[in-house]
Amino acid sequence: MTSYAARLHAATREKGSAVCVGIDPRFAMLPTEFTTGREGSAEARAEAIELWARELLDVVAPLAPVVKPQVAFFEAEGWAGVRAYQRTVAAARERGLLVIADAKRGDIGSTAEAYAQAHFDVVEADALTVNAYLGLDTLAPFLDRCRDAGKGIYVLVKTSNPGSADFQGRQTVDDHGGQAPLHERVAAAVRDIGDETPLDEDGWTAVGAVVGATYPEELACLRALMPRTPLLVPGYGAQGGGAEDCRAGFGANGLGAVVNSSRGISFAFRKGDHAERFGDARWRDSVHAAAVEMRDALRAVAAPETA
Amino acid sequence: MTSYAARLHAATREKGSAVCVGIDPRFAMLPTEFTTGREGSAEARAEAIELWARELLDVVAPLAPVVKPQVAFFEAEGWAGVRAYQRTVAAARERGLLVIADAKRGDIGSTAEAYAQAHFDVVEADALTVNAYLGLDTLAPFLDRCRDAGKGIYVLVKTSNPGSADFQGRQTVDDHGGQAPLHERVAAAVRDIGDETPLDEDGWTAVGAVVGATYPEELACLRALMPRTPLLVPGYGAQGGGAEDCRAGFGANGLGAVVNSSRGISFAFRKGDHAERFGDARWRDSVHAAAVEMRDALRAVAAPETA
Repeated sequence: MTSYAARLHAATREKGSAVCVGIDPRFAMLPTEFTTGREGSAEARAEAIELWARELLDVVAPLAPVVKPQVAFFEAEGWAGVRAYQRTVAAARERGLLVIADAKRGDIGSTAEAYAQAHFDVVEADALTVNAYLGLDTLAPFLDRCRDAGKGIYVLVKTSNPGSADFQGRQTVDDHGGQAPLHERVAAAVRDIGDETPLDEDGWTAVGAVVGATYPEELACLRALMPRTPLLVPGYGAQGGGAEDCRAGFGANGLGAVVNSSRGISFAFRKGDHAERFGDARWRDSVHAAAVEMRDALRAVAAPETA
Repeated sequence: MTSYAARLHAATREKGSAVCVGIDPRFAMLPTEFTTGREGSAEARAEAIELWARELLDVVAPLAPVVKPQVAFFEAEGWAGVRAYQRTVAAARERGLLVIADAKRGDIGSTAEAYAQAHFDVVEADALTVNAYLGLDTLAPFLDRCRDAGKGIYVLVKTSNPGSADFQGRQTVDDHGGQAPLHERVAAAVRDIGDETPLDEDGWTAVGAVVGATYPEELACLRALMPRTPLLVPGYGAQGGGAEDCRAGFGANGLGAVVNSSRGISFAFRKGDHAERFGDARWRDSVHAAAVEMRDALRAVAAPETA
């Protein structure tokens, strides 16, 4: 069983890309070729999403090792949307892409086990984002699959939104009087848990962390605190993070991080320069150009070593 | 628009019950009358879940103001399971029950909005459990619906599992050097946010908190810190909490808390005394007896004032 990190890094090297393409299917943002005549029901809207996602995957498959469907946007179309999520994950895997299910799940005991079943066994994502606020015991069913089924998780450590200061950024005090923000405590736990999973040949664990590109100083600090932890870095592009802000997230060999962009790639054709150059009709060209641009911008700050 | 707390408390008074019946549909635990011949596919298993849940609702509707479907167990059956979730919520509402969707969702910006759409607009739950680790800004779309659509939320404050000590229980330090565990910081935020929502005539807000019955001291402390916050108290029964442990969760008028039991009611027939007295064939009688027993045990510690 090849570990998640090994599979991710093989794909990163092969494609020379650390881009994670976020799939956030907001119906109103889709190219009109998919939405026309499909406004009427959740089933029809979900069909539009599924058809669009499949073509999006065709465009980005050579340019990115991994995609990240945001489960919330599928859920917002009800059960038919969840069916589209399931089929989109399968379509991504058929195209050789790894899949991070962005579900931010977290619950206790047998409920956590049910979420692990849902996203790893039924939907067959390669990795899952998880929220560890409920405690380290709640990670057990996910860790089982990291050890035994080549899966990965990304624990939320420092998210890209301004409100991440409210609780993640809270100063905590340990038994010896030492102070550190909560996100550093979570990071230390992520590192320690990860070290109990099989390392890939470059030394990366199967337990990753989510750290936003919008806080480059914290990113550098958290990378140092979690030297063997794969990072998922959101907040690039639309949220304001640039390639330079992501530099600190990568390890010495140019591996260890994937940077996500969602609407900055998939819906680039709806804004600014791309709206003029490509527009709705040439959305595929817009997606291609945006993904190439991001891949090359990231290569300039961290080129993955080829094997 | 009647507020969530007003609707919850009207039902609590009418039924003289603070019981929340958790709906955790584990296929292997269902009565055999539903599972026989339905093992083969996710669609068939989801059908079994849906049929069982509807009959469970018939039994508990006179005994409980509110039910709590655990979304994870529905998700574990894939999209067909999510369809069963959607239909179960509708069936509960048709029977006059309020519904707390136990989904523990939490995400940023437009993604949080998509989760609010999914569980409040599409599925039409009355309330939703949410995880605020990502920050207070992530609650905005849920709060909009508390203010404008009579919805409620329950923010995770202190969960019932042992691991809740790991992060929720972390000592934090404020700008004045004052120390308090993180769950008290979250509680203070929940209280303040709730005070910006419309209060019901008994003075309860639309922003609730999840506080486990398994930590009675913390429950008392958190109730004092959040005097107008409706509580959802998990951990009763199978997890070890008793009625006495829940006493501190109620307000002076016997309102302000609902106590959840899931397998302790719905799957009581599979264990101990109930397995002998009722067994699989008389599962309805077992559910009825378990719900009556819990209702009466809670009445003994906090009888809701009738209007």
